[in-house]
Amino acid sequence: MLNLNGSMWIVGVDLGGSKVEVILARRDRVVSTFRGEGLNRQVVGEELVVIKLCEMVNYVLRNHGLVRVDMLVVGGAGLGRSREQKSLEHALYGHDIADKVIVRSDAEIALWGALSGKPGVVVIAGTGSIVFGMNERGRLFRAGGYGYVIGDDGSGFWIGREGLRAAIAAYEGWGPETALKELALKWFTVRQMEDIIPKIYSDISPQRVLSSFAIAVIQLAENGDEVAREIVENGAARLARITVSLLKKLRLKKARHLRITGGIFKDKIFREKFMADVKAAYPKIDIAPAEHPPAYGAVLLGLSYAKEENAKKSKKSRS
Amino acid sequence: MLNLNGSMWIVGVDLGGSKVEVILARRDRVVSTFRGEGLNRQVVGEELVVIKLCEMVNYVLRNHGLVRVDMLVVGGAGLGRSREQKSLEHALYGHDIADKVIVRSDAEIALWGALSGKPGVVVIAGTGSIVFGMNERGRLFRAGGYGYVIGDDGSGFWIGREGLRAAIAAYEGWGPETALKELALKWFTVRQMEDIIPKIYSDISPQRVLSSFAIAVIQLAENGDEVAREIVENGAARLARITVSLLKKLRLKKARHLRITGGIFKDKIFREKFMADVKAAYPKIDIAPAEHPPAYGAVLLGLSYAKEENAKKSKKSRS
Repeated sequence: MLNLNGSMWIVGVDLGGSKVEVILARRDRVVSTFRGEGLNRQVVGEELVVIKLCEMVNYVLRNHGLVRVDMLVVGGAGLGRSREQKSLEHALYGHDIADKVIVRSDAEIALWGALSGKPGVVVIAGTGSIVFGMNERGRLFRAGGYGYVIGDDGSGFWIGREGLRAAIAAYEGWGPETALKELALKWFTVRQMEDIIPKIYSDISPQRVLSSFAIAVIQLAENGDEVAREIVENGAARLARITVSLLKKLRLKKARHLRITGGIFKDKIFREKFMADVKAAYPKIDIAPAEHPPAYGAVLLGLSYAKEENAKKSKKSRS
Repeated sequence: MLNLNGSMWIVGVDLGGSKVEVILARRDRVVSTFRGEGLNRQVVGEELVVIKLCEMVNYVLRNHGLVRVDMLVVGGAGLGRSREQKSLEHALYGHDIADKVIVRSDAEIALWGALSGKPGVVVIAGTGSIVFGMNERGRLFRAGGYGYVIGDDGSGFWIGREGLRAAIAAYEGWGPETALKELALKWFTVRQMEDIIPKIYSDISPQRVLSSFAIAVIQLAENGDEVAREIVENGAARLARITVSLLKKLRLKKARHLRITGGIFKDKIFREKFMADVKAAYPKIDIAPAEHPPAYGAVLLGLSYAKEENAKKSKKSRS
């Protein structure tokens, strides 16, 4: 039977390509939070991911005089299928750091964190963007995402890219005049627009380069540049459209809860346009910031799982 | 004095990231054409580019019993500035394969090939897209391009990406219904749209993957799919807009010559929309396929240079 008393130690992990967040909790109370470098399974392979991940978890445990915990819950991108989940669980059991190991998708822990287990939708707009939903029967849905080359509408990357495209168009004379032109030349510290090309393509992450340029585009929109404002609003409108299509798919019967998270939602123009568009379709929807980060969602998911398992077992032992 | 008689041997090279084309000519008559693997200076470095390039040229020369030629003219991407040109010229002189070495930008040899030296504009729509122009005083201009992340409007990559985006939107229910949905699943041999993600991002060239998908998108447009047709026409319209803005900048006083080249122009819908939009701005413009490929443009450029130099020298020797 799983330890569910006050001394139960649980570790929740958000395994991302750009960062890994580890939360050590005693039941639902956070004891320690650790943030490490991102681990991309598709780039470095599962073996190295497991080693690096265990290093991070062990580091957190040692700081609290622990050598193992009752439960380890990991959620991450590319872990949506049972095969990948089982494989990573198996490898983590091998390192003997937890009595119980659970691996789930990034969607599932994001939803658990954002909504504390309630059915609803979470919209993430950071470097990338994606929309996850869970209906009243616990079934998961997703929309958008697909990465920077073909998707991520309304993300930091997307806004940065559209901002730079508008700057180029103004510079070359085939798009409307905008302060984005001067902004881009200054931000990338070049005298000719052409010289921006190597700055984008020689970086290992064009996503990161353009996502940080997005901050400047958003600032310009706030300062009244019409073209920049249109880009920010267009990004928000696209993400709202994807969100509304997912809300429709969930067919929620009770209250509709929507949680938003990620750096881009900090911008007022973006947030207000997004909310206005969603409310045009669902006037009574409850929109609020995500309640907790995904790593804490992993903790909550683990606790819920433990409760269910214990309930099953005590029922069995009684019968 | 440069050899300008009938036995003059000249090599023209189009040094591209996806292919290298080498033309051996006896004055302006092509003797041999060789196509080798692409060489990206920004990826492999100048040293290796020089070695590989000399290997290709030497291979062509040996096949014709030659050890060196009168002139070697190389044009390529990222060779727009005098510094890069001089550096590559210097390195090529070191390999002692030509009495005279000239290095120029991809724009210059493309224009020489497409227009045989006339002032005008060449529009390229292959995997990427770009517009180059030369005014009556020989000054070069460019517009568009900027690579797949931020530019290349109307290119094969661009059409493939927009086609896949429309497929995803239809699949997820936030875009109009289109046969692109089934086409994408079939073409990428996946059952769920999500499974396309690794097919794009684990390939070393997402450009190439999406550019080859563009052929299928174009086919669907030809077969009457409205969404696919809109994408192809939108790509053509964007490229036409960039072209018109460059034509304005050239301020040509005499006839306006426009040359088109690259696989995407083979499509009727694309070509006709492009031509209609350009003719709306310049009704009398002369639009035709490029007269010669860029590697032959390098040969023509070299011959013109030799003639000028010889004229200067004979003037000098007479005075």
